[in-house]
Amino acid sequence: MEVEGAQICELSERELHEATVTTPVNIAVVKYWGKRNNDLILPTNSSISCTLNQDHLNTKTTVRASSSYTDDRFWLNGIEETISNSPRLTTVLVTLRAIRKEKEKTLGPLAEGEKPLSEWKLHIASENNFPTAAGLASSSSGYAALAVCISKVLELDLTASELSKIARRGSGSACRSLYGGFVEWQHGVDPSGEDSCAVSIAPESHWPELEALILVVSDVKKSTPSTSGMSTTVKTSELFPLRVNEVAPKRIKQMEQAILEKDFNSFATIAMKDSNQFHAVCLDTFPPIFYLNDVSRGIITLVHRFNSQVDPATGEPLGIRAAYTFDAGANAVIFVLKNNVKELVEYIASHFPPATLQPTSVYFPDPFGIFRSADAPTASGFEEYLKATPKTFELLPTFEPGSVRRIIHTNIGDGPRNKPCSASLLNVSGMPRRAKD
Amino acid sequence: MEVEGAQICELSERELHEATVTTPVNIAVVKYWGKRNNDLILPTNSSISCTLNQDHLNTKTTVRASSSYTDDRFWLNGIEETISNSPRLTTVLVTLRAIRKEKEKTLGPLAEGEKPLSEWKLHIASENNFPTAAGLASSSSGYAALAVCISKVLELDLTASELSKIARRGSGSACRSLYGGFVEWQHGVDPSGEDSCAVSIAPESHWPELEALILVVSDVKKSTPSTSGMSTTVKTSELFPLRVNEVAPKRIKQMEQAILEKDFNSFATIAMKDSNQFHAVCLDTFPPIFYLNDVSRGIITLVHRFNSQVDPATGEPLGIRAAYTFDAGANAVIFVLKNNVKELVEYIASHFPPATLQPTSVYFPDPFGIFRSADAPTASGFEEYLKATPKTFELLPTFEPGSVRRIIHTNIGDGPRNKPCSASLLNVSGMPRRAKD
Repeated sequence: MEVEGAQICELSERELHEATVTTPVNIAVVKYWGKRNNDLILPTNSSISCTLNQDHLNTKTTVRASSSYTDDRFWLNGIEETISNSPRLTTVLVTLRAIRKEKEKTLGPLAEGEKPLSEWKLHIASENNFPTAAGLASSSSGYAALAVCISKVLELDLTASELSKIARRGSGSACRSLYGGFVEWQHGVDPSGEDSCAVSIAPESHWPELEALILVVSDVKKSTPSTSGMSTTVKTSELFPLRVNEVAPKRIKQMEQAILEKDFNSFATIAMKDSNQFHAVCLDTFPPIFYLNDVSRGIITLVHRFNSQVDPATGEPLGIRAAYTFDAGANAVIFVLKNNVKELVEYIASHFPPATLQPTSVYFPDPFGIFRSADAPTASGFEEYLKATPKTFELLPTFEPGSVRRIIHTNIGDGPRNKPCSASLLNVSGMPRRAKD
Repeated sequence: MEVEGAQICELSERELHEATVTTPVNIAVVKYWGKRNNDLILPTNSSISCTLNQDHLNTKTTVRASSSYTDDRFWLNGIEETISNSPRLTTVLVTLRAIRKEKEKTLGPLAEGEKPLSEWKLHIASENNFPTAAGLASSSSGYAALAVCISKVLELDLTASELSKIARRGSGSACRSLYGGFVEWQHGVDPSGEDSCAVSIAPESHWPELEALILVVSDVKKSTPSTSGMSTTVKTSELFPLRVNEVAPKRIKQMEQAILEKDFNSFATIAMKDSNQFHAVCLDTFPPIFYLNDVSRGIITLVHRFNSQVDPATGEPLGIRAAYTFDAGANAVIFVLKNNVKELVEYIASHFPPATLQPTSVYFPDPFGIFRSADAPTASGFEEYLKATPKTFELLPTFEPGSVRRIIHTNIGDGPRNKPCSASLLNVSGMPRRAKD
């Protein structure tokens, strides 16, 4: 593989306009749900997200332009998709080509027979290292990668803010994956959408103690796609206007302050309340939309129980030490400070035993294969703990073993990363290296 | 049993002040959730319910007063409960005794050594013919029975409206079980609660085509009692004020009109939306409250699918022909017009196969033991259908067989019924006939 990558690197720039990037997934803590303009993807309210570490979850995209390609082609996880079937991918492509065309007006004339770059066809390959469309926000990292990667190949010098507006046209939440750390997608007021872009609240270095556990409940495709779901909510939920006009704007301010002050108690409370309210307006939609299942609800109950524990020594409440949030799917993301990760994982495992283990079983280290998910460093010193003596727990058989299929331990990470050409997803012939039938 | 009952009947009135009544369960179609006064049980919004036929679901209560009893005693389903542990039962008792005391001021003097009836102790026995506290509104029929029965024994001449205010103090929704048919609990505005009572919208004879299937999902005790649940909602749900101030009042008017016009489409749509909104504000409560489980959600999806069917002959939509509603539990009540019951039961059974049957199995007649639940006539001509040739269905194994444990087929019924003394739940000694250890 690396040999082939090296070959690509040796192709001359004349023949090869290529870029490879990885982009992170982001998880909203004040949710985006509802558009005021479906075509431009303008939201009814601002949202705030945390960018997760792309060492663990990411989309990797390679875009190559060539004057010899006859068609724009797109492969997702090795499978070719018809671009014309994806109006949103087309919108991103058309928008960036139009910017390139404008730029070409300012450049010198081309040699005889030479086509301008804006007319070269693109081969695009994209891969997620996690299941697509399972409520893990694959579209957010996917469209962010697409916008960054195409703009690089077309030699456009766009800021993260400008790129966020283009990624937004692919998938609303994608605009927040243009930055690392803590990000606000400002809803904006301009009908054109020019002021509906992402801004950084704080970089990934701001709150290094904040980590996250992703509890993978299911990787089946979610039942209601979020695009049609939120459109039905806007049309039918009678509680939705109060959320949009009053509750969400208030929470945006509170959440921004909680993040800037690294106030975990407030951060956690708002995140949990806002996740619940998002699912509440889904339920108030007609017909109702469900993303949480019995296991999701079990996780919510477990987190509230974890947060209501008292210090056995003093009898004092230990306070809010974990916060769940659920996007349009059954999987949970639980935010937790580094020094509480161990205890929380033990607590989860005792209520949601791994598939292979029976009650009262030795399951540490690594009951869920937490760190086998990616060839990547772990998020915190938790690894050392797992290497320690195995522990025995009285597993509570509240749910079937394996109801929580996997835990991914991650933290807050940076924005899009440029990768060397050796990381290309395309081979010398411009076809995906790892094609699937 | 009947012999003993006959003996009781022969006791002289001097020795025996006894009454036995049965009362129906009611199911709200515009929900009551939230009190503006916890002590007086005054609701934040008006609600509307349908009284179900007590031939199928009922509470039966016997109250006997005797000058020889030394204590008030209470047996629920044959098990003695400590009255002082139930402030609400105490409230009902104290309220009715106070009215009796007022009345006694207008009566002639008692014989030497005779105690006024208001000072006689009561033995109370109550039985539900369905599981208590499983979200089937046992408290509604229970407190209605208690209010009616005690007032009879104390020889009070109270109207249904007056009794509804007393039953309300036991359990809010109980006030609606004082009438048959279609009932509104008016929230009232008086701080004393004097105007917070039930009124009849239409009697049980008004809409004889309207029937109901109760899908019993679970008979485990529900996790969050409604009293504490609704109190937390009022305190923490930020969407709740919109429901109370705008949505519920509008739906009360619309639902009343739909009932009066026997407009099933509107009745069904409002009932489903209001059930969903009630569960939505539960989810918007912090910590969130869950009553629906995966099976409940499956039933909701199934009803929406049933309602989106088209006539195979014409291709025309068949329209809304079923309406789910869920109270504080996982069980569904599905309203359906008589001529669609057969088809709906088939549809339910093909998605939620009974426990004992495998896919592609002969399951009619009576797959769920629908009519074995009570020694009572069936609600409609459906019985004849069930007696017809058994049918074979391709059962869809969407859910585990037995996820819907039982279906109770019922219709709209009358209000409290006086029973003869032969139906007494107490034996000659004033102890429950069917006591449990």
